[in-house]
Amino acid sequence: MYIGIDLGGTNIAAGLVDSNGKILVKDSVPTNSTRPTDEIVADMANLAKKLIKSSGVSISDIDSVGIGCPGTVDCKTGEIIYSNNIPMQHYCMADEFKKHLDLPIAIDNDANCAALGEYMVNGNKVSVFVMITLGTGVGGGVIIDGKIFHGFNGAASEPGHMTLVSGGNKCTCGKEGCWETYASVTALISQTKEALDSNPDSIMHDIVKKAGKVSGRTAFEAAKQGDEAAKQVVGNYVRYLADGLVSIENIFQPEIIAIGGGISKEGEYLMEPVREYVKNNGFNKFMPKTNIVAAKLFNDAGIIGAAMLTRQTGK
Amino acid sequence: MYIGIDLGGTNIAAGLVDSNGKILVKDSVPTNSTRPTDEIVADMANLAKKLIKSSGVSISDIDSVGIGCPGTVDCKTGEIIYSNNIPMQHYCMADEFKKHLDLPIAIDNDANCAALGEYMVNGNKVSVFVMITLGTGVGGGVIIDGKIFHGFNGAASEPGHMTLVSGGNKCTCGKEGCWETYASVTALISQTKEALDSNPDSIMHDIVKKAGKVSGRTAFEAAKQGDEAAKQVVGNYVRYLADGLVSIENIFQPEIIAIGGGISKEGEYLMEPVREYVKNNGFNKFMPKTNIVAAKLFNDAGIIGAAMLTRQTGK
Repeated sequence: MYIGIDLGGTNIAAGLVDSNGKILVKDSVPTNSTRPTDEIVADMANLAKKLIKSSGVSISDIDSVGIGCPGTVDCKTGEIIYSNNIPMQHYCMADEFKKHLDLPIAIDNDANCAALGEYMVNGNKVSVFVMITLGTGVGGGVIIDGKIFHGFNGAASEPGHMTLVSGGNKCTCGKEGCWETYASVTALISQTKEALDSNPDSIMHDIVKKAGKVSGRTAFEAAKQGDEAAKQVVGNYVRYLADGLVSIENIFQPEIIAIGGGISKEGEYLMEPVREYVKNNGFNKFMPKTNIVAAKLFNDAGIIGAAMLTRQTGK
Repeated sequence: MYIGIDLGGTNIAAGLVDSNGKILVKDSVPTNSTRPTDEIVADMANLAKKLIKSSGVSISDIDSVGIGCPGTVDCKTGEIIYSNNIPMQHYCMADEFKKHLDLPIAIDNDANCAALGEYMVNGNKVSVFVMITLGTGVGGGVIIDGKIFHGFNGAASEPGHMTLVSGGNKCTCGKEGCWETYASVTALISQTKEALDSNPDSIMHDIVKKAGKVSGRTAFEAAKQGDEAAKQVVGNYVRYLADGLVSIENIFQPEIIAIGGGISKEGEYLMEPVREYVKNNGFNKFMPKTNIVAAKLFNDAGIIGAAMLTRQTGK
């Protein structure tokens, strides 16, 4: 059995996971991200011990602990090189964790863990699998032959920072025109706000009034009711999202691309036009095509992927 | 020893190559691409036999034959699924070749072969290597752990068909805004022609008159002489090229990106500003960075890569 820990800016979520990637029991505690990191790591270890105890297994039944962490991770040494959400720089998380719970440990970037988790459950052992998560940004992870693809330096893959519009919107990474500045939920909310400003009669205004805020669902909800301005917002967003997915397809030719994040709950209303655009615009016209699917695990992907870090083929 | 054959639209080039990727002897014959493909393959085999004979080795000294072919190749079966330059559709090239010369044979896409060849000589055994060739289009090949990366279906990788400008220039592939419509030599020539039209006093006009045509060198030559319009063409071209290279870096984190094609002969005048842009705009700020170099092999890359197809690790 395995412990998987998903360290987020708001919560530490952890689970006891079996060798098939099934969560047997899970729990979470607040991160309180501004306190000393050693305290956060102590709470991570305590949560792991609590899970082990509550499920009636002993520490010797646990094969390894995996941690998914935001930021740049040196997964060979278990050092967090840099993290923004939870302030860390050259922090040896693996060593610190072992002071509390001395088990084999693996640490990787949280988006990579989510991709590995989704692959374990949704990936059907395909040779090339890509997970794209639409949220505050556009996150991504690439699984090749059952292993997380890291590039030569451990910093891959960041498909959200492909250029989609050369010279376009300024991204938080410093570059202009990154895919995530057009296809993230943050971007969709900006696009919705612009449409609200220029369309005073749109029913999106009623939806916002009722919900108390503009969200990634505003335009979808109004579009489904036939609102023209909202249909245009959704249409443009689909185009931005799908244009980046065609790039992913042309570069990686993955057998599966899984789309994650809350917005994937829009289901076929989002996925069907995205698939259609990718089908019509992909470079490859003669070989089998990429299958684009909605992710299935939602928040559990990070826990499961972290737990499975030591089970990657050949690792 | 190995035979490598680079099948091009104009010429069939072939070489006898040693196990270090060094060409011992090479030769070429015209392709005459519109004749029956069986005749082309017969000439390929004859060229191989001629090389073997002229170098005084016997057929039993040859470990394998490799062929680099334009288009979509099923490298498991040696079938050309589709090629445009040399009209072929579902053509079993490996079987046909073996009728003339019965040796172990491997066939792959020509851009993938060029990438493998460049990797063998210029790649220093790095774990992730990307070759980008700037020509009529923008070709590419990705070498991971010493092997050509094919995606799940054999159709990878086509980085020239990443979107660089969503909704931008129409590409021959059918999509809009592909990188190759901005960063190929074809695109540079279009950009130069536009600048010629709007800058009647540019010294580019003199250069074109002397050379008899607009080429990929026109703007570079004038820019080096201080021509403002030409400097702007080169500056914009560098930006388009480098913007795509940042995408490649953010996605693959390759240790080396090699830039091939005639334009790479512009040397540091091209490479230095490209490196500067990539350095300043890459997502990864904390781990070792990608090294961007000019390719070294020029036309020999295809022969060497084809010859080395059967020597890829684990193949």
